[in-house]
This record gives sequence, C-alpha cells and structure tokens, in this order.
Amino acid sequence: MHVVPLGGLGEIGKNMTAVHQRSGMVLVDAGLAFPDEEMPGIDLVLPDFTYLREHAERLRGILLTHGHEDHVGAIPYLLREFRTPVYGTRLTLGLVKSKLEEFGIRNADLREVSAGEKFSFGGFNVEFVNVNHSIPGAVAVALRTSVGLFVFSGDYKVDLTPIEGEPIDLGRMAALGEEGVLAYFGDSTNSERPGYVPSERVVGETLNEVFRSVQGRIIVASFASHIHRIQQVVEAAKQHDRLVAVTGRSMVRNVQIARELGYLDLPDAMMVDQRDIARIPDQDLVVLTTGSQGEPLAALSRIASGTHRTIEVGPEDAVVIAAHPIPGNERGVSRTINNLMRRGAQVFYSPLRPVHVSGHAAQEEQKLMLSLLKPRYLVPVHGEFRHLMHHAFTARALGIPEERIFVLENGARLEFRSNGEARRIENVPSGMFVVDGGGLADTSGAVMRERQQLAEEGMFIVIARIDSQTGALVGEPDVISRGFVDPQAANGLVEGSIEVVSRTLRRTASRKITDWGQLKNEIRRDLTSFLAERTNKRPMILPLIVEV
Amino acid sequence: MHVVPLGGLGEIGKNMTAVHQRSGMVLVDAGLAFPDEEMPGIDLVLPDFTYLREHAERLRGILLTHGHEDHVGAIPYLLREFRTPVYGTRLTLGLVKSKLEEFGIRNADLREVSAGEKFSFGGFNVEFVNVNHSIPGAVAVALRTSVGLFVFSGDYKVDLTPIEGEPIDLGRMAALGEEGVLAYFGDSTNSERPGYVPSERVVGETLNEVFRSVQGRIIVASFASHIHRIQQVVEAAKQHDRLVAVTGRSMVRNVQIARELGYLDLPDAMMVDQRDIARIPDQDLVVLTTGSQGEPLAALSRIASGTHRTIEVGPEDAVVIAAHPIPGNERGVSRTINNLMRRGAQVFYSPLRPVHVSGHAAQEEQKLMLSLLKPRYLVPVHGEFRHLMHHAFTARALGIPEERIFVLENGARLEFRSNGEARRIENVPSGMFVVDGGGLADTSGAVMRERQQLAEEGMFIVIARIDSQTGALVGEPDVISRGFVDPQAANGLVEGSIEVVSRTLRRTASRKITDWGQLKNEIRRDLTSFLAERTNKRPMILPLIVEV
Repeated sequence: MHVVPLGGLGEIGKNMTAVHQRSGMVLVDAGLAFPDEEMPGIDLVLPDFTYLREHAERLRGILLTHGHEDHVGAIPYLLREFRTPVYGTRLTLGLVKSKLEEFGIRNADLREVSAGEKFSFGGFNVEFVNVNHSIPGAVAVALRTSVGLFVFSGDYKVDLTPIEGEPIDLGRMAALGEEGVLAYFGDSTNSERPGYVPSERVVGETLNEVFRSVQGRIIVASFASHIHRIQQVVEAAKQHDRLVAVTGRSMVRNVQIARELGYLDLPDAMMVDQRDIARIPDQDLVVLTTGSQGEPLAALSRIASGTHRTIEVGPEDAVVIAAHPIPGNERGVSRTINNLMRRGAQVFYSPLRPVHVSGHAAQEEQKLMLSLLKPRYLVPVHGEFRHLMHHAFTARALGIPEERIFVLENGARLEFRSNGEARRIENVPSGMFVVDGGGLADTSGAVMRERQQLAEEGMFIVIARIDSQTGALVGEPDVISRGFVDPQAANGLVEGSIEVVSRTLRRTASRKITDWGQLKNEIRRDLTSFLAERTNKRPMILPLIVEV
Repeated sequence: MHVVPLGGLGEIGKNMTAVHQRSGMVLVDAGLAFPDEEMPGIDLVLPDFTYLREHAERLRGILLTHGHEDHVGAIPYLLREFRTPVYGTRLTLGLVKSKLEEFGIRNADLREVSAGEKFSFGGFNVEFVNVNHSIPGAVAVALRTSVGLFVFSGDYKVDLTPIEGEPIDLGRMAALGEEGVLAYFGDSTNSERPGYVPSERVVGETLNEVFRSVQGRIIVASFASHIHRIQQVVEAAKQHDRLVAVTGRSMVRNVQIARELGYLDLPDAMMVDQRDIARIPDQDLVVLTTGSQGEPLAALSRIASGTHRTIEVGPEDAVVIAAHPIPGNERGVSRTINNLMRRGAQVFYSPLRPVHVSGHAAQEEQKLMLSLLKPRYLVPVHGEFRHLMHHAFTARALGIPEERIFVLENGARLEFRSNGEARRIENVPSGMFVVDGGGLADTSGAVMRERQQLAEEGMFIVIARIDSQTGALVGEPDVISRGFVDPQAANGLVEGSIEVVSRTLRRTASRKITDWGQLKNEIRRDLTSFLAERTNKRPMILPLIVEV
C-alpha cells in the first residue's frame, strides 16, 4: 500500500495526502494555497491532480480534518472532476457546502461524522479524534488500513481550556498508541517554536482589558473562520454592553454558518446591521471585520485608508488586529497599522499585546503527541522544509531513530508492507495547478515568466509595414511602449528606436531577407541592445510585421 | 529657521532632513530606499529633490551619520546635481567614495571628521558624537543653529561593550542636555521593542559555539557593512584555526575598505582567495558571504540552490544567517533556509539561535537618551508611522508633553523661532524619485500602474488592417497575447477574439466611423467584456490599426 503526499510539504498550504491500498484510495484533506509574489495575477494554487486522474476509478472518499481553505479549498475543483463522498464534522461540511454553492455544485455527497465516531468505507476503517485548533470541529484522522494504523493530526494544538467543545482527546491518542500506530503524519507548522502555545483564553483576557479602557468604537479584525476568537469578542461585547456589527464578505458568511450550526453563540438582539452602524453611539459598538492580513481590498484596509463605505475610525476609537501576519503579509499588515494610527486610532496588535495565539502545536505539544502515539514512523507534514526538519529534530530528541522519520517533498511515494516496513519508491507527478481568472486552470510557466518580464521591464512594440515582394520597409515604423519608461523622461528614445529599426530593415532588405522570423529576430536583437544601453532595461520586444 | 524631513518618516529608508536657516541650508544624511512589491522593476527610491532644487544655491553641506545605504545612498545622485561638501567619519566617507567611483564622480569634496570634533560652516556649528550601531564610525550630530541646539541621533544603540571603538558617548549626551537641546530627532526603528538590545558580543558567543561543534565547512552570511560582525567571525576563525574566504561583491568591497581604513583586523595570512576554496579542507575554512536577506542573486541564495560557481554546501557543513529578515524579505530568507536544509546543511538563524542582535535602540535605550538630552521638542525619525508613534508614547511616559512631540510625515516643515517656540507650517513637495534602469529617474505613476496591470492580467494586442477610405476591415485581424492565459488552455479564445473584433469593425464601418481613436475604444470595450467573461481576467488591450 502507498501513501502519497500531493501537497503541503515544503510549502504552506494546499495540504492533500493520498492513501492507496488494494481496496481503493482515500484522500486526507484537499486544500489550496495562495500565490506568492512570483505568481503575478494568479488567484490561487491547487495540488497536482495528475496522480488522482490516473487512479480516478479507485477513489473511495475524502476525509477532511477541518474547514480551513488550506485543507478544504480544493474540494470544489476536485468534485468537478471526481465523484466521491466527502467526510467531515458539521462545521467543516457547513463551510464546504457554502463554497460548493458558490461554484454551483449541488449534488455533492457530504457525510457528516462527529469526533469519536468510527466508520468504514472502501476497505478503510476511520475514526475522527477531537483536537484543538483555530477553528471549531477540528479532528485528527485515525485510518486503519490493510497494513496498519495511520494517524493524521491535521492542524492541531493542545488547549486544555478551550473556548468551545472539548480539549484534544489525549486519552484516545494514548489508546491509539497502545493499539500501535504504524505511521504518524504530524502538523509541523510551529515546530521551530519551543514550549507550549498558550490557550485561546489568553486573548479573551486582553480583549476584556481593551474593552474596559476604550471609550470610542472598537473594531476587531480576525480570520473569518476563527469562530472561537469571534466568540470571545462577543463575550467581551456582552460584558461591556456593546452591540456587534459584522463586516467583510467572508466574516458575514462564516458568522452566519457558525450561528446556524450552533458553533457561535451570538443572540440576534446583540447584532447590528452594517447599514445601521452610523446610528449606534461609538461606545456601544464593536465591529467584527476581515482584513487582519492587510489584504488591500478587505474591510479593515479600507477603514484604514478612509475608503470604507460605512465605517470610519478616529482618535477615540480602537482597533484590535487579532491575528499574526502570515509570512509574506508583513508589509500589508504594517501599512494597515500605520494608516489606522494616522487616523489617530489606538491599535492593539501582536506581539506588542497578546491579542493572538497560534492554533498550531509548539515543540512540547509535538513531544506530547509523539509520546502518546508512539508511532513506528513519523512523516512531518504541513510546513516549509525547515519546519518539517525541526519536527524531525524534535522526534529524534525523543529517541525516534532517523531511518524511521521521512522528511519528504510533495509527490514522494511511501510504500508500506504488511510486515510494517516502509520505504520510499519512485515519485508521482507533483507540480501544481494555478487558478488564473475564473475557471481556467493551467500550469504554464511561460505565462508566469512573461508576466514577470512585463512587470519589471515593460513592453516595447514595433510595427513595420513591409513590401511583401522586396522585404523593404514602407514608410516609417511605429513604436509603442507600455510599462517601460516614462516617454517624457526618455529623451529621444522613440526617435532613436525608429532609427534603429529602420536601419535594421534597410540592412535586411539589402540582403534580400524576406523570412519574417529572421526579420523579427534581427529587430529584436538590435533594439534590445539599443534600449539596454540607453535605459539599462530589457523590455519584452514584440516586432509586428504588416505586409503591404 | 526651518527643519524639513524629506525622507525616512513613515517609511523605512531614504533618510534625509534639511535644516534651513538665514545663513544657509544643511542636510543631515541623504539615503535611499529599496522598492517594495508595488514598484515592479524599480531599482531604488530616492527622496524628492524638489525642495533642494528650489534652494540649491543655499546648500552649504551634507552631514552623514554613518555609511548605511539608507543614510548615504542618495549622495551620488545629489552630487550629480549639487556641488557641496560632505562631512562624515572615515569609514562613512570610505564607503561613499567607493560608491562615487562606481558613478564616475571624482571631484567630490569629502571632509573627514572624527567623533568628538567640532567644526563650523555656513553659520552652523557642528559636533559629531560617538554612538554604537551595526556599522563602525556611526555618530550623532549636534547642530548649533541661530535658534538653538539640535541633536540628530542617526541610527544608534547603547552598547557598553562594543566590539570596536568606544561605547556611545553618554557623557557628551548629558553635557548637551545641560547646555539645552531645543529639538531631538531620534531613531525610532525599534521603538516597539521593550527593554534593551543586547550587546553585539552575544553573537560572538554563539559563533564560538557553532565553530566548536561543526566539523565541515562553515558559511556565515551577514550584511556586508556589518564590520563588527565580520570581525567576530574572523575572531572565531582565528580561535578555531580556520581560514577566511570572502564572497559576494559588496562583501568583498566592504571587507577591503574596512581593512584599508583600519576598521577590520583580518591578516593576509588568514585569507583565502575565492578561487582556491576547493583546495582548502572543509574543516579549515569559513566563508563570509552576502545574501542574508535571501536576495535571489546573492551568493548565499546561489549556494542554497546549488548554482554558485565555486561554493557547495553539504551534510557536514553549517550555515549561519547572522541577520534578521527586513520586513518584506521573510519569504526569500525562508526559501534560502529551506534550500540549504534540503542539501543537508545545519542552518543557524535568528530567532532560533542568537546569531543576530539589532543595531537600533529599544525602549529603555530611547528613555536613556531622552533623559540625558532633555530636549524641549522631540521629533521621532527613522521608521514607519507606527514606530514614530511608539517613540512618542515612550516620550510621553517620561513626561514630555504631547504638544512638544512632532510626529510628522515627509515634507512636513517645522518652524523654530528664536524664543524657542516651534510650530508646523505648510508642507514642501515630498514625493519620491525612482531609479529605473541606469540613469533615468522619474516619478511616473502611470508606468508603475501599467506594469502592475501587465503583471497581473497580461497584454492582448489586436492588429487590424483598415481601408483608410471606408474604415472597413481588410482581411482578418491578428491577435497576440503575452502574459495573459496559456493559449493552449484557452479553448477557442483566439478565434473568439478575432470574431469579436471583426464584428466590432463591421459595425463601425457600417456607421462610417473613420476616427481611429473611436475605433480603438470600441474594440477595447467589446474585447474587454468578451475576455472578462471567458477568462475572468482584464488584460491590457492594445488595438493597433494599420491603414492600407
């Protein structure tokens, strides 16, 4: 039997692992990732589906550990191609359902399972085990296969005083350890962090302090899926007699789903419609909003830049950014903080104030899990390579020998035998799919490279009318540039370019060249060196030849 | 008399402040900034020179606090326009000189001054006061003007056990405080950080541990200007019998300058030429390199990705990244760490190991300076708005009243009167200049916006041959795209676009439209909605009309 991580290894996001035995194949999670600065214009990134397509008829189901985009975001794209049941807890499926509706997918086979329940399908026996995380309804997956027991932690932390629900089921983890875990696929996100991650309750204490001290309006930005944090804001509002307004598309949607499914206790009487905000005195209001990552179009950024339709912020007001910037978002978050402060607002943010705690286990929690589960093999998952390595270092400090720890990359394939031996065999395809605009998904590196050149150097277009018989230039060539250099500042650049192209075409005509490909190459070459010398830039040069 | 901060406020970098009294004008520092992700293709960013140009004949000199790019990088651009003396300490001017040589500027009037010296020019009396920072030869500037004494901290920290030179001259600061400081322009970079920044010596202890434990080659990446840190690497190498190789253009240059000027003690006998690295056994070598910020083209990134010409790294080797990522560089640094670990190297980095300490004062150091200088006014400088604000909070906690603290933005103008009163008067122009390619400097926002659109949406070009008499289309239009969507993946998009443009032109011809501007607008409009509907993207559309 084979286990194939198809995403989430050596990178953040798009977590997905295939477990493939004789009786069929199951996926654990199916997430997406957000593009980095090297993928201009890309909306989102999906795992490579090639392996799934090759074995499509063997897919028996998808198991979801929790409702975050990096674990469930690929579901609509998967279900467009593959028909298979999806198993998850109530909130997880609630979020997936809302996503599927956006995509117009109505016939999905969603099967709700609670933590503690066992169920079987396709030759697998599955058990969901409760864990704590920054979203309710998070579970680990215990998967009994033909060769042994696998445990996937999903994203987890150990919170013995959770806001809602039960603490992580350490007893069940211990029992699984006694039963014998063949391989453990453990969350590595925080494996560089020593100690324990504090309980979510810490944030509630800070919120209470803020609510006690602030006279004006309070705005709290958080991840829209962080229902526990939202609950704590509601509790603070209740205690300090403030009403709650919710803004930001995903925040409005998630609050609604969580209320409907009973995960969020927010009475109607406490809620204010966005449009009525202006009517509520500042000291009686808290606004829950998106934008904790400094996303330019999110509500908080618009409030900060003074372009929000209904919400303003001023000197008596306070803003709590109840989240940590995800790597890559630091500048955007900082810009938001600066702009809010320019408006005179007090801004509370991490790490200056404890307004955020992580949802991922730190080293001591990782040790606890490894000690309870006592796995024969460890596969660190969810994280960049450095995080996987540090999870491995922690495991080795606990005495797990190096040869039983597999630090892998996406597409690596592990073979497990019935005698309990595991080894790496040849990889499967593991590129990525990008979603660029609505429905189109492609992996074309060429388009990305073109965009990068266009972004950094701009474009320079030459239109030359050529006598199709003689190859001679007719009239003067035209040049047009976009994103290159400011034409005003570029002294004589247009005239110089026309001169260069004319000279090139006189030369090619005298050599009787009528092969347009060759003409274009010569124009490109001559113009590249002229422009590089004059501007130190190398725009994309596009010679267009019009036969007359 | 007026003080005008022209850069460095509400942003990182390009620090420059003009002090303008009846007798003339002096600049304190003249730095550059590096572009952020919203300025694709831009090489660097300079302060706005408009105010300087308006008062060019009054410029009496430039005072440099230290040799970092964000304080001296604009000097070559300034000296191309303005002829004025430049005052600085030996290393500062050594670095400036090397920069000027690159620009072919040979006749600069560089005047070396030591910490503790007083000098006068243009009606100003100046004193350089020794401070500690992450580069030798850093000073604060005490500037006696017609209305009173101004103190500019430059970048500073309090290091009572510095690696080289003297601790910050707290005695002199106290004496200035007794004399009476009218306004203090203080470094705010670390004003969000409580406590004290540790001494640079802490890093030496970590380096010693690393050198003790590692068997293979050791590679240390650092800022090229951090001569103290480089000295500590040399000391560790000496103690553990390793030779030192230096790689990376700026590292090679700065090591050479610092050795020539006596700031770095690195004997010839310890140095290995880059080309001889392969001949030195791994355990006898340490490589000093650039790339601590994950810059894709720097030596460390190339070592990490296996593309460096002479240096490889493997399982027995260790890499120390002796720097903290500057905001915006986190992903690049992380990529470098991941790649080095993929090669099996041990990687030591902050904050996991104390291989870096900041060069900027934290809150307790800021309190110390404020207490010694007892300024009438505080102007927090060097930092984003949030940092300026936190410096102000600290000052208010020390009892400086709010109305004596000026949190400003670039281009704000403070007027000081001889009675010691200060107030804000109208701003001066304070955009920025960008350097885009070699010599061209412009501020064109249009070019930046074009690049962003090209980067995210790509370009779509239509070439239509039009009968100049009738306005009718001749033949079929051609379409070409770059950076848009993968043509293979875009089912029928080319044919559809040709169809849309043909239809548009039939319509315009039937309406006898021969105004090409209008033709182009109609093509652009029809094609935009067609492409947006089919691909959800809005490429830049460039209709080209060729008269036949």
